[in-house]
Amino acid sequence: MSSLFLIGMGPGDLALFPAKGRQALAACTDVIGYNLYIELLTPLLDGKQRHELPLGAETERARMALNIAAQGRTTALISSGDIGIYAMAAVVFELLDRQLAGKESAPAWLQLHIEIIPGISAMQMAASRVGAPLGHDFCAISLSDLLTPWDTIEARINAAGLGDFVVTFYNPVSRQRDWQLNAAKEILLRYRPTTTPVILGRNLARADESIRVTTLADLDSADVDMLTVVIVGNSTSRQLHIQNRDWVYTPRGYGYTRLLETGS
Amino acid sequence: MSSLFLIGMGPGDLALFPAKGRQALAACTDVIGYNLYIELLTPLLDGKQRHELPLGAETERARMALNIAAQGRTTALISSGDIGIYAMAAVVFELLDRQLAGKESAPAWLQLHIEIIPGISAMQMAASRVGAPLGHDFCAISLSDLLTPWDTIEARINAAGLGDFVVTFYNPVSRQRDWQLNAAKEILLRYRPTTTPVILGRNLARADESIRVTTLADLDSADVDMLTVVIVGNSTSRQLHIQNRDWVYTPRGYGYTRLLETGS
Repeated sequence: MSSLFLIGMGPGDLALFPAKGRQALAACTDVIGYNLYIELLTPLLDGKQRHELPLGAETERARMALNIAAQGRTTALISSGDIGIYAMAAVVFELLDRQLAGKESAPAWLQLHIEIIPGISAMQMAASRVGAPLGHDFCAISLSDLLTPWDTIEARINAAGLGDFVVTFYNPVSRQRDWQLNAAKEILLRYRPTTTPVILGRNLARADESIRVTTLADLDSADVDMLTVVIVGNSTSRQLHIQNRDWVYTPRGYGYTRLLETGS
Repeated sequence: MSSLFLIGMGPGDLALFPAKGRQALAACTDVIGYNLYIELLTPLLDGKQRHELPLGAETERARMALNIAAQGRTTALISSGDIGIYAMAAVVFELLDRQLAGKESAPAWLQLHIEIIPGISAMQMAASRVGAPLGHDFCAISLSDLLTPWDTIEARINAAGLGDFVVTFYNPVSRQRDWQLNAAKEILLRYRPTTTPVILGRNLARADESIRVTTLADLDSADVDMLTVVIVGNSTSRQLHIQNRDWVYTPRGYGYTRLLETGS
């Protein structure tokens, strides 16, 4: 039985890529991924067949990984962050689902040993740079309307507002999409204060990392690109200034804020 | 300036604990954490002063870490999973916030160099064992009502239902709390089908790991303990049976389900 490893490499700094993923890669003859991620992994890929495909070719990458593994080659499909969060693992299972439904002609896919190795997702890396904004209940919402209609996304942002979840926006903007993040901001402003802390993290754990704390009132899609992850605090998230550095955290519960106010 | 590292060790398997955390630990003279996590890290703690405190003593652990670091000792505060997600990082910042507000007498805390190293959280580990249930928008909700009143938690579960988020329940039950998970189930059943896949992951990445896929109708708090993480799919999450193994994934968008149904 041949193996297909689905590996999340984390934000890009190899010091955050654990032994589990390295051991799996070492066992592979073939590695498939978006060009940039393959490049970041170069030190670990000596002697392996690399299959680089451009961003956007998700289904092609997943299909290629399944097909190469089905030929008996031990194969790794790579994504940045956590491969299980807005990433390639779901695409692989979409294809397996189609095969089970008789819509593909690749029964060998169903014989593969599949193992998934999680990684640090962008929201976790961004949170770690500024404190603990994800310290209590949170949600993640993709603003990409390629596969999800905007009215569904809008309903979800409203639900996040109603539930007072800390919200991380993945895919906040793209070259073709620039208005969704500002629309999301307007929705959240119905539920939480203008002063709510917002974190913009770009190219985290890479040489040109930038991280910035702003407020919901000042959030503007013009400051955000497709490499940015956006975390919006909930109504209790607090911004601290300590020695010229901005920190954000979300207390563990609503009881805490009272505790702070009463001084007990 | 002395350093305090806040380190998430991941689910417990040291093969998932990356170099970044190991390097930080290597630089420390003092390590603070809950007994069990300190034990799991034993191979990395030779010659270090260990400060083990029981579960439940969160504020004491955070205070001890800040105090030892403020004495000029390079210190690590450890938690399992991601220290930024329902864990100790928020507790440290709660104390820093109190110091800024003049409610503590430890100005030296504000001089520390603080660095946070994220880790794989329980929901990610559970997801990786069964496919890609977190493949699209999701939220995390703690069912602990120690610091958050139940009506707030209930409102949040309703919001998760309204928004059709995949939901991970942290702290689903405890010795003192056994009814909240079943109450949460009844709320979610107002919004999504009885057949919605549910994942129960216990002691993940440890020797006695168990992982089980059931349905929302069959979810029962009697099958869950405080070491279990519970993931409830959204209305589009799909359960697949491949070679006697259960998998769960959440398609990337609502468009996908249509794609599968129409066969295009």
